[in-house]
Amino acid sequence: MDRFSPKDELVFLPLGGSGEIGMNFNAYGFGPPDDRQWIIVDCGVLFGREGSLPGVDMLMPDIRFLAEQRENVLGIIATHAHEDHIGAIAPLWPSLRCPIYATPFTARLITGKLDEAGLSSKVHVKEVPVGGQITLGPFTLDFISITHSILEPNLLAIRTPLGVVAHTGDWKIDPNPMLGEATDAAALEALGNEGVLALVCDSTNALVPGSSGSESKVRESLTALIGTLKGRVAVTGFASNVARLDTVARAARAHGRRVALVGRSMQKMVSAARETGYLKDFPTVLDETEVADLPAHKVLYLCTGSQGEPRAALARIADNNHPHVQLAQGDAVIFSSRVIPGNELAIGEMQNKLAARGVELLTAEDHFVHVSGHPCRDELAQMYRWIRPKLALPVHGEMRHQMAHARLARELQVPQAMVPENGQMFRLAPGRPELIDEVPAGRIHLDGRLLVPEGDGLAKDRRAMGFAGLLVVTLVVDHKGRVAADPVVLGEGMPEAVEEAVLKAVEGTIARNKGSDPDNLAENIRRAARRAAHDAWGKKPITRVLVSEV
Amino acid sequence: MDRFSPKDELVFLPLGGSGEIGMNFNAYGFGPPDDRQWIIVDCGVLFGREGSLPGVDMLMPDIRFLAEQRENVLGIIATHAHEDHIGAIAPLWPSLRCPIYATPFTARLITGKLDEAGLSSKVHVKEVPVGGQITLGPFTLDFISITHSILEPNLLAIRTPLGVVAHTGDWKIDPNPMLGEATDAAALEALGNEGVLALVCDSTNALVPGSSGSESKVRESLTALIGTLKGRVAVTGFASNVARLDTVARAARAHGRRVALVGRSMQKMVSAARETGYLKDFPTVLDETEVADLPAHKVLYLCTGSQGEPRAALARIADNNHPHVQLAQGDAVIFSSRVIPGNELAIGEMQNKLAARGVELLTAEDHFVHVSGHPCRDELAQMYRWIRPKLALPVHGEMRHQMAHARLARELQVPQAMVPENGQMFRLAPGRPELIDEVPAGRIHLDGRLLVPEGDGLAKDRRAMGFAGLLVVTLVVDHKGRVAADPVVLGEGMPEAVEEAVLKAVEGTIARNKGSDPDNLAENIRRAARRAAHDAWGKKPITRVLVSEV
Repeated sequence: MDRFSPKDELVFLPLGGSGEIGMNFNAYGFGPPDDRQWIIVDCGVLFGREGSLPGVDMLMPDIRFLAEQRENVLGIIATHAHEDHIGAIAPLWPSLRCPIYATPFTARLITGKLDEAGLSSKVHVKEVPVGGQITLGPFTLDFISITHSILEPNLLAIRTPLGVVAHTGDWKIDPNPMLGEATDAAALEALGNEGVLALVCDSTNALVPGSSGSESKVRESLTALIGTLKGRVAVTGFASNVARLDTVARAARAHGRRVALVGRSMQKMVSAARETGYLKDFPTVLDETEVADLPAHKVLYLCTGSQGEPRAALARIADNNHPHVQLAQGDAVIFSSRVIPGNELAIGEMQNKLAARGVELLTAEDHFVHVSGHPCRDELAQMYRWIRPKLALPVHGEMRHQMAHARLARELQVPQAMVPENGQMFRLAPGRPELIDEVPAGRIHLDGRLLVPEGDGLAKDRRAMGFAGLLVVTLVVDHKGRVAADPVVLGEGMPEAVEEAVLKAVEGTIARNKGSDPDNLAENIRRAARRAAHDAWGKKPITRVLVSEV
Repeated sequence: MDRFSPKDELVFLPLGGSGEIGMNFNAYGFGPPDDRQWIIVDCGVLFGREGSLPGVDMLMPDIRFLAEQRENVLGIIATHAHEDHIGAIAPLWPSLRCPIYATPFTARLITGKLDEAGLSSKVHVKEVPVGGQITLGPFTLDFISITHSILEPNLLAIRTPLGVVAHTGDWKIDPNPMLGEATDAAALEALGNEGVLALVCDSTNALVPGSSGSESKVRESLTALIGTLKGRVAVTGFASNVARLDTVARAARAHGRRVALVGRSMQKMVSAARETGYLKDFPTVLDETEVADLPAHKVLYLCTGSQGEPRAALARIADNNHPHVQLAQGDAVIFSSRVIPGNELAIGEMQNKLAARGVELLTAEDHFVHVSGHPCRDELAQMYRWIRPKLALPVHGEMRHQMAHARLARELQVPQAMVPENGQMFRLAPGRPELIDEVPAGRIHLDGRLLVPEGDGLAKDRRAMGFAGLLVVTLVVDHKGRVAADPVVLGEGMPEAVEEAVLKAVEGTIARNKGSDPDNLAENIRRAARRAAHDAWGKKPITRVLVSEV
């Protein structure tokens, strides 16, 4: 049908990051409905969970809607360098092939990832100065400095001929972030004065009252705490929190301890920060092997692995399996981090191993050693006071966080608040914002080395195998369809007694089905095998009959 | 070898509950080393975790050491009725066949479990009055009332000719537990004055400073909170916390709401409490279907499912899949419970579904709606002041809790503190307590309907399948060992491309191994298949070759 009145619209389309804390992927489109130009803000991953998605390392958004019109995608803009904002750039870039824009520290880390993926000859990340501006087709973007738990977080002021959108990325209000720029409150206030159509905003801490607190307070507290410790000290936390690394290194120096970085991502982050002009006063770090010779009270290890990741430094130390770092009675580990939900058991197990060897554990549960990088309710309220948007679009959260965020926005007199879902397209202008379309959305699994759509059901299938194993029966028939060999039963992951019961049932089925055609027989065997497993065990495993013809 | 000087000893042997919060199982032995008589204190389960032990519903201790000498086992004594203290009685009783002792409420619940297991004709639970005493061979046990998050928790004073042990079970100090007996401080002080060899004590909250708080304060707070709510209210929590059920029911009545119990275990616990003389003033509860007709502000549901259990009431309500209970915009759910570690994601997912429908969520994170049933550090200190044992034996905790508990005991001037491990036997008297033996210990999985030793590795095998699926190849040979049919490849849980690559590799291997004997060929196929999967996918699945001979 011809459109007799094609007309420019500004639309918002999240393809990730709604309904989850991670996998941030937001698109903004401008133009008439049949010819929109797109920019993408952030392109991140979500880490897999063994319980619900076994064998999936990472999840990323299904972006087929944009990939199919990639000639209209003007660029990917990264607000900051956390994995849940940049981790999917390298794997998804081949289906977009667009330019990438980021401030220097973020650009450095993205470039490293493109290098590793063998893509650096094909795409060059365009560096935007801190506080800079870029124009992509109808979009003009201002990078406004905010604060978060990483260097160079940016709020984007996205200007279009139909109005301005403020996209926060991840943020908090830290009046004293210790490293990098403070929140540019003047710029945010000025932006609000322009009149903002919509605020697309971080919901992570929308259930948490108060404020997230300042890195400067953590610096005071950690410095005092490290001063009370006598043996070796290991501090673990998120390597990307460069201000925290700086805090710990300075605390070490204040108490006469030398710092060793333990774990590849610690080294990578410190290098990236230095190469982009930060950490000028960072103490010279020693090698793991060098500090091993120092007396215990002269040593501080900055370790990866605060989440109990099995291959990271701290887990290996806890297993007494690290080539250079050992901790023992009299030593202490400070967890300068929060527990990411889902990691409780892995962290607890690692802590048990450390405790069993007499290592003291100091965590955010009983010491002030961490602040969140996301805005709590008072900070959200401040942002809404600065920006005064017509519409609140809470993203970057699970549904309960987004709903609480929307409720808060309404309480703060924001005229409209809508909780978007991935794949929902909202027209922001002209007119009153509304949901206008739903496009294909979903998740892609990084499964081994392959990208697999969630809809293929592989992880679900494996989860079922985790629950009840896999039952396989072989059936060999001759060219006339007669059974030509004894059946073999494999009950992988099930008790022997179950396998035996199944074999009996299969033999009985074969005996009773003489002359039946092989397809029928195979189906009867499958059912009988599954039933026998259920009778013997109380579980119904996935059951496959493999037919061979001789 | 003859023992020339047989001599009575008092020994302590935990077979469960050390290194874990759950699966409590402690044995005390008395007599000469070659002829000890045993009592068992508690016999509980630990619930499985899908991530690490997929398909395992419950874990229980491996008690073969006692089962092999069951004629010397005088009885099982249950301190209280939580699953982690009584849940393994029915499944393990057949290998012990000894009497069972418990106070009335606990006895009622154990009897229900024995009934369900078809054992009630074989064993009758012997009821001990609250505050009562029993004698079993050389052991005389006093049941001393303490407080916890269930009715009738008991500390056992275990008297033997060689001295007294105090075994706490689970406890806290609640001066006003609202239901049942308060802590019998006088009895504990008197026990301490007798001189106690060892205190075997709950470590769950040994990392938590302060005190756990009183149920009476929760009653005040919950009553006020429920008064602020306008729509339907659902309160979820642990059904076994009968005082909390009473608190909620009274709060409902105070605000003109009728109570419906939703979920089988709510009904079971209320019945058990009433039948043993409690809850005399509990409001008459309505049926789920009856309250459905009342106005929203007249309704309060007491629901199972606070931990996100998928088949419990609240999960079904969240899925909008409950036959009689629906919640919507304007309604509220109060989580009057803590999050048991490992359940964070399941609870969060359930809360997201409720939030998506506009239901308000009120949790212990931002409202005072729960107190723990376990002693925090100040309460532990009080107990050590009362009992003044010569030895602290921290049990019922993970290693980090037990180590912190032992450290606290030493700070409190307890002369000796030892963290036992399951299977370690300690001589408590005569002489200075010491580790004297290690006996077989471990875990048994309830896997489907079968009890399977952890060492059989089924869950581990299935976990590996969860990660990388299962690769099966069929090989059909004739009586001369020649390949007689095309191989079939099944790559369950893996991408199709992997299956295809494996088939190619298998065909190549067969072509290259003409004339090789079937065993060799099968092994070569297995290796080639696994390698091909790894090359195509980056994972190495368990690989089986099923050989049939025609």
